[in-house]
Amino acid sequence: MRTKKIAVLGCGLIGRTIATDLCRNYHVTSIDNDMDRLKEIENNHHVETIKADLSKKENVKDVIKDFDLVICAVPGFMGFETLKSIIESGKDVVDISFFAEDPFELDQLAKDKNITAVVDCGIAPGLSGIILGYHNERMQLESFECYVGGLPLEPKLPFMYKAPFSPADVIEEYIRPARMVEGGKIVIKEALSGAEIIEFGSAGKLEAFYTDGLRTLLKTMNIPEMKEKTLRYPGHIDIIKLLKEIGFFSEKEIEIGGAKIKPIVAASKILFPHWKLEKDEKEFTVLQVIIRGEGKRIQYDLYDEFEEKTKTSSMARTTGYTCTAVAKLLLENDFNRKGICPPEFVGEDQECFNNVVSYLNVRGIKMTRSEKPII
Amino acid sequence: MRTKKIAVLGCGLIGRTIATDLCRNYHVTSIDNDMDRLKEIENNHHVETIKADLSKKENVKDVIKDFDLVICAVPGFMGFETLKSIIESGKDVVDISFFAEDPFELDQLAKDKNITAVVDCGIAPGLSGIILGYHNERMQLESFECYVGGLPLEPKLPFMYKAPFSPADVIEEYIRPARMVEGGKIVIKEALSGAEIIEFGSAGKLEAFYTDGLRTLLKTMNIPEMKEKTLRYPGHIDIIKLLKEIGFFSEKEIEIGGAKIKPIVAASKILFPHWKLEKDEKEFTVLQVIIRGEGKRIQYDLYDEFEEKTKTSSMARTTGYTCTAVAKLLLENDFNRKGICPPEFVGEDQECFNNVVSYLNVRGIKMTRSEKPII
Repeated sequence: MRTKKIAVLGCGLIGRTIATDLCRNYHVTSIDNDMDRLKEIENNHHVETIKADLSKKENVKDVIKDFDLVICAVPGFMGFETLKSIIESGKDVVDISFFAEDPFELDQLAKDKNITAVVDCGIAPGLSGIILGYHNERMQLESFECYVGGLPLEPKLPFMYKAPFSPADVIEEYIRPARMVEGGKIVIKEALSGAEIIEFGSAGKLEAFYTDGLRTLLKTMNIPEMKEKTLRYPGHIDIIKLLKEIGFFSEKEIEIGGAKIKPIVAASKILFPHWKLEKDEKEFTVLQVIIRGEGKRIQYDLYDEFEEKTKTSSMARTTGYTCTAVAKLLLENDFNRKGICPPEFVGEDQECFNNVVSYLNVRGIKMTRSEKPII
Repeated sequence: MRTKKIAVLGCGLIGRTIATDLCRNYHVTSIDNDMDRLKEIENNHHVETIKADLSKKENVKDVIKDFDLVICAVPGFMGFETLKSIIESGKDVVDISFFAEDPFELDQLAKDKNITAVVDCGIAPGLSGIILGYHNERMQLESFECYVGGLPLEPKLPFMYKAPFSPADVIEEYIRPARMVEGGKIVIKEALSGAEIIEFGSAGKLEAFYTDGLRTLLKTMNIPEMKEKTLRYPGHIDIIKLLKEIGFFSEKEIEIGGAKIKPIVAASKILFPHWKLEKDEKEFTVLQVIIRGEGKRIQYDLYDEFEEKTKTSSMARTTGYTCTAVAKLLLENDFNRKGICPPEFVGEDQECFNNVVSYLNVRGIKMTRSEKPII
């Protein structure tokens, strides 16, 4: 049997981790517009490379035409258009770009092309949805709670935070109203609201606040209570609230010496050096999912750290390996539902769920599960 | 005897207060480039007005040529050049512009023109120097301490502060290293350092921190210990330190969409609406001066509030009336030392000192004095 060929679009932190994982079993080609990134991966791994500007539709279509599966790991702002091009090309795809648009707008197109397009396939959204999908298929659920965060192991004042992705995207989490489900209805929570300190085993006490991370679950699930919160070291949120209150995150232009500037753009630039994750800086990822239903409370806990041996960040491991676990399901025909498939669809199948969990396990990403009756 | 004619350059908050005070006894003309300001003062007071762009040297010289005394109340950035033009025109002057340059650079010029130029003639610098000059002439001083602040009576979070002058000038106080005298030597304190909470009678507990306010005293006094601190509500400085630490007060340009922007300029714009003193907003001024020497500790305390009847801010009252008190000394020939005269020179004379204190007293600005032996 011939080795399957995979195109990984985007060779950033996550895209690189995905490519180097998949290249152990498949024929992998990394595609990016940055030669330095491509050279680094080519020199160190069994990965071929193609230099291409993926912001151009025709380039995307041209470059993927000989592949069996595409991984879309481009920046969020170009994710939707890139995914559309992939689907139009009739290729199965796993997407990790976390674009802001509604992926179901591409559902009919994907079905017409008879392909599988798994979207939002990271840790949360991603693994959290796979877990929820598994249980939702098997019991009547009353509530879903998800807590997730990626943090530096040695936090520095004042922010005690490093962003594994761009500061602009982090600030976006701090200003976008967050959609939760209460009493079966979608409710809008103010950004940064709902702050509470929670203890997370190895990660210690962290502060959780509402973020708009339920995404597809708002459409696909029929559960009366659902909430998602992001985690930071205690104190971080107070500083962010202060900066926001002062107006540093405002999108209303101010005039400075003739130039029109959005405060949020200036703030993003000023915050960048504080939030930049240094090369090989140690960080960790926490995920906690709590599901209630039929008198039971089921809790999943994941704690993962930067991998010293391969110098791979925990955020790249947890996000990237969930993506590659699902890629393997598609490549081995274990998951072949057509159309747009968020992670919760993948988790519905017992075998798929088990495969993802054991795939992560093999890579050192352990998840504990505890179950107790609700009294 | 003909009524003396005074030109008041600048019709801002302080300039207006000076003009309306002096017009009770003298022939006053307000000069500014802003017609609205001029119309307002002309309609409500016995003040004549001239519209002129005082940033042009020839305009300054032209406009003041028929006056007996000039008050220089222009913005700080144009203060030095304006004062120079006034001195070149051979006019006595009291300056309240608080320019950054060293006024003694104009000393020889003022002496050559045989005129009196009192500079820095507000509350602190200003009244504080008059007090110090008085005692320094009469006893051997060991130390001088000055605490000063202008604050809103109803502080609002997060800053609990309103600026009676431009936010850019306030931020300047927060970034400029502060010069103190310790053991007879000038020492440089980091901006915002030396924070301590002190109780000030009616004003309650305030936080004091080093600012670069000793100015001419660094040259004119020979006192082994001198310090100056500015006052804010407790908590304000922590927020300012945070913003500074993050980089919002940096003068190093960043690039935003092609435009080069200094973070401090953007921050100043963003902070402006928070720090803007509203029309007729109630505020107060605190001044405490502590002088030690010859076994005595002498303390002066001034507390003054917004004047409801005339809608005059306390900052304008305390600054403006010190200026007009000294203007009266010049006009009545009670002070006629030639050259550049900082307030400490004015205070040296017993009669001048007494006149200033009683002038303020008549306008409701009371100062208490307490003296005790140092044990």
